[in-house]
Amino acid sequence: METIEHPRLMHAWADRVRAAGLRIGFVPTMGYLHDGHLSLVREARQRADRCVVSIFVNPLQFGPSEDFDRYPCAPERDAALLREAGVDVLYRPTAGAMYPEGFQTQVAVAEVTKGLCGRSRPGHFAGVTTVVAKLFNAVKPHVAVFGEKDYQQLAAIRRMVADLDLDVAVVAGPTVREADGLAMSSRNANLNADEREAARCLSRGLRAAQQAIAGGERRAARIVERAREIVAAESLAGIDYIELVDAATLRPVDDIRRPTVLAMAARIGRTRLIDNVILPGRELEG
Amino acid sequence: METIEHPRLMHAWADRVRAAGLRIGFVPTMGYLHDGHLSLVREARQRADRCVVSIFVNPLQFGPSEDFDRYPCAPERDAALLREAGVDVLYRPTAGAMYPEGFQTQVAVAEVTKGLCGRSRPGHFAGVTTVVAKLFNAVKPHVAVFGEKDYQQLAAIRRMVADLDLDVAVVAGPTVREADGLAMSSRNANLNADEREAARCLSRGLRAAQQAIAGGERRAARIVERAREIVAAESLAGIDYIELVDAATLRPVDDIRRPTVLAMAARIGRTRLIDNVILPGRELEG
Repeated sequence: METIEHPRLMHAWADRVRAAGLRIGFVPTMGYLHDGHLSLVREARQRADRCVVSIFVNPLQFGPSEDFDRYPCAPERDAALLREAGVDVLYRPTAGAMYPEGFQTQVAVAEVTKGLCGRSRPGHFAGVTTVVAKLFNAVKPHVAVFGEKDYQQLAAIRRMVADLDLDVAVVAGPTVREADGLAMSSRNANLNADEREAARCLSRGLRAAQQAIAGGERRAARIVERAREIVAAESLAGIDYIELVDAATLRPVDDIRRPTVLAMAARIGRTRLIDNVILPGRELEG
Repeated sequence: METIEHPRLMHAWADRVRAAGLRIGFVPTMGYLHDGHLSLVREARQRADRCVVSIFVNPLQFGPSEDFDRYPCAPERDAALLREAGVDVLYRPTAGAMYPEGFQTQVAVAEVTKGLCGRSRPGHFAGVTTVVAKLFNAVKPHVAVFGEKDYQQLAAIRRMVADLDLDVAVVAGPTVREADGLAMSSRNANLNADEREAARCLSRGLRAAQQAIAGGERRAARIVERAREIVAAESLAGIDYIELVDAATLRPVDDIRRPTVLAMAARIGRTRLIDNVILPGRELEG
C-alpha cells in the first residue's frame, strides 16, 4: 500500500491509473477505522480495479464547541487495517496541504443540509461537501462509497455530485452494527461503560418504530413517537432530534407512502451519536 | 466540429480523449464571440491537442435587475467562427441540463469576490464559480483559458482551482482592444453610436494613469485620480469604481510596489463596462 500526502501527487497517481484504463474506487474517512469502514472498502474494491482510502480529520466540518480535539485517532492501526484489506493507496493529506494560507472557497448544498443535523451543527455540511469536493478532485475516482449511517451526509454528497456534474458514481453502504444493535462509529470509542450501555437506546428506538410499521402504522407522528419513548426513557440520553423525512429531499413527511428515512441524533454524555433506518415507501392501506 | 449538449455526453467525450493520451484545452464563454474570445481559443489550441469551447449564458451570474434578458446572442455566427478557428467541440448545454429541478449547490470564493464588481453585483461571482466548476467537471480540461479583461473573475477562478485541488492549469489571455482602445466585450453590441464614442473613456482613463506611472507616480490615490478625471469628464459615463488593488488578493493598495491591477467599471447608458490594466510591481524611488 502506497501512502500519498499531497493533492498534486494524488493527481499524478490517478492519471497513471486512469491512463492504464483502470477504474478507481474511493472511500473517504476520518480514520479510527471500524468494520463499517472496512465494509465500504470491500464495496469499493468490488466496483473498481484500484482502491483509495483517505484519512483526514477535517477541521472545517467541526463547530467551535465540537469534538475536533478529541476525535479518536490511531494512524498505525488504521494503516495496518487498510493494508490487510487490500487498499492500494492511503491518501493522508496534511492540514497544511488541504487548507493553505489564503484558502477561501466553499462548496455548499442548501436544502438537504438545513434540517436534522444541520440545525444543531451550522456549517458542518458545508465543511463536508467542501472537503469531499477536494478529495474527489484529488483522487479522481470513478466510484465513491459512503456509509448510510451518515444519511444526511450521503444525501448532500449525492446532491453535490449531481449539481456540479461530477463524474463520480456515489454508492451507499449499509450501516454496520455491533452485536447489540449500536451503529458502528469512531465516536463510540469516547463512551464509558455506562454510556456504551445507554447508547443502545438509539437502535432500540429505531427497532420499536419499525415494529410499529410492521404492525400497520403509517403516520409519521406515531412512528416518531414510538422511537422517542424508548430514547427518552434512557436517563443518560439527550435527544437532539428524531424525524421522519423524505429519503431524497430530507423534508419532513406526514406518512411513509414514499421512501423515507427515520433519523435520529442524541447525546450520550458528551458524545453525540446518530442513527437511522431507511424505509421503502409503503402505500397507506384501507 | 462536434456539438455536445449534455454533461454526461461531455464526460464520455473527455474520457475518450484522455484515454488516448491527448490534452484537452478549454475556453468557457457566454457566446456572441469577438476577437478576444478567438485569441483565447488560439491560446488553448497551442497548449492542448483538443479544444473545447462552451457557450452558456449562465442565469446564476446575473442579478435580478441585470441584463440577462438582453445579453446579445448569435448562435449560428458563433458556431461558424469556432469551426473556422479549429475548435473540436462546442459544448452548449441547455439551462435545463445545467440547473434541473432541485439544483441547490453553490461554489463560492469569499475574499477576492468582495470588492470591485462584487460590491455592486452581489451573487455574481458565486454564479461564475459555480458554473465554471460545473463546466470543468463536465469538460475535464487539462488547461483552461480566461481573459484578463474579467480580471476579478480570473482571480476568483484561480483561487477556486487552488482551493478545491482541481487539476486544471488556468491560463490568462491578454485583453484584446478595438483600434481606439475600447476593450472587446460582447456587451459593446448594446452601445448606440454616442455611447460607443463615450465608452472610449475607460481605456483613455487607464492610459492616462499609466502615463502618470511612467512619469514616476507610485501613489495609488494619485494614479486612480488621473483615471477618474478622464472618465468623470465623459457626460454619458457613470463610474461604478476605479481602484488600484493587489493583483492576487484584490485588496486595495497604497502604492504600486507589488504587482497590482488598476480596475474600473462604469455605466455607459444602460450598459455596464469593465476594463483594467495589470501593473508589474515597481519599487518606490528616492
